Amino acid sequence: MSDRVDQLLNEILRFRSDRDWEKFHTPRNLAISISLEAAELLDNFQWQVGEEPITPEVREYASKEMADIFIYLLSMSHDLGIDLIEAATKKLDESQARYPIEKSKGSSKKYTELI
Amino acid sequence: MSDRVDQLLNEILRFRSDRDWEKFHTPRNLAISISLEAAELLDNFQWQVGEEPITPEVREYASKEMADIFIYLLSMSHDLGIDLIEAATKKLDESQARYPIEKSKGSSKKYTELI
Amino acid sequence: MSDRVDQLLNEILRFRSDRDWEKFHTPRNLAISISLEAAELLDNFQWQVGEEPITPEVREYASKEMADIFIYLLSMSHDLGIDLIEAATKKLDESQARYPIEKSKGSSKKYTELI
Amino acid sequence: MSDRVDQLLNEILRFRSDRDWEKFHTPRNLAISISLEAAELLDNFQWQVGEEPITPEVREYASKEMADIFIYLLSMSHDLGIDLIEAATKKLDESQARYPIEKSKGSSKKYTELI
Repeated sequence: MSDRVDQLLNEILRFRSDRDWEKFHTPRNLAISISLEAAELLDNFQWQVGEEPITPEVREYASKEMADIFIYLLSMSHDLGIDLIEAATKKLDESQARYPIEKSKGSSKKYTELI
Repeated sequence: MSDRVDQLLNEILRFRSDRDWEKFHTPRNLAISISLEAAELLDNFQWQVGEEPITPEVREYASKEMADIFIYLLSMSHDLGIDLIEAATKKLDESQARYPIEKSKGSSKKYTELI
Repeated sequence: MSDRVDQLLNEILRFRSDRDWEKFHTPRNLAISISLEAAELLDNFQWQVGEEPITPEVREYASKEMADIFIYLLSMSHDLGIDLIEAATKKLDESQARYPIEKSKGSSKKYTELI
Repeated sequence: MSDRVDQLLNEILRFRSDRDWEKFHTPRNLAISISLEAAELLDNFQWQVGEEPITPEVREYASKEMADIFIYLLSMSHDLGIDLIEAATKKLDESQARYPIEKSKGSSKKYTELI
């Protein structure tokens, strides 16, 4: 994918191979795990009213949960033979088409609601 | 972060800047969005009983949702000044320490449950 | 809603009123909280491969998380003026129409996929 | 549980029995489904900045998702032999002890952070 990402992925794969964890890492279980880590990330913002500044503590917690999500995302994309950067670039191109600048500027409407 | 990831991030940032969407992309809202996309990823596996093979259709759907998660993850890490690859490498190191090979091999127990 | 549910709801409302927590319990924050508790419930089943029996410990953990979801669900339905039992009955009627027995028997297909 | 809730539960059980869906409704799959419906509920509030009024349309969508969560929650509690109202009452009692009024009034801190 890229030098640094490839290196990280290799470390992730060796980590789970060393522990014989491939059997737990089915696509379904990885999808569950991404969802659980995403909830732990969101947990940092649970009862906020209005926008609150990000404290160093929240930033540190968030960083760990984002790392977990990224690790499971890389594992799953490897297992499914998906190039994550390519998939994201393609998705962004689709969004460009769905959300023309003049219609979506400053609006949070979904593309299905844009007239 | 890496050439290809940096390029992707630049495209993401231009995409939202063109649409004046930074105001919607608070860390809290990005965390919510990652959680929602993770649910859409998991939705592909909802009623599965036992392991089922991944069809090309599910792989395609999964690929799009994983792309969305990655896009929001990159946006959020940029906004919080977090290097995602560095954070993941650090997290992996912590996991190495928490899950010694000899104790965790073939086991799905949490590190808090390993004796 | 019903004698026992009404009594529970009254206790929930007094609990948060005593603590001056209404201001945190916006519909959006309650929706976030339901999502977080649902993840904690799912966390009990994270790395399962195939169906595993429910241990008394998992049942106990699950019971607490289900209680949390129910409490937030009742709070939110109260705040939005929704009768949860009535809404569920209505939804079940819709599902009856969407999933005719002869077409959906033994199948986990979504109604949009039923021919 | 209560007359109206019992009646609803009976309809839910007949609905899935008529369709031979018990085999899909493992506790794990029901936990996944609650999580997915919770995300659909939260989806109504995704890009909100500050508190926005609840439109009749959002209220209607929210009502349907809350109904789905309640239906799966009742199914799961039935299958695990859990009385949802009793579990919620017990959980509320625990929260009373964890969050003494004088310490938690007007604060959104977790009980582990209350001094």
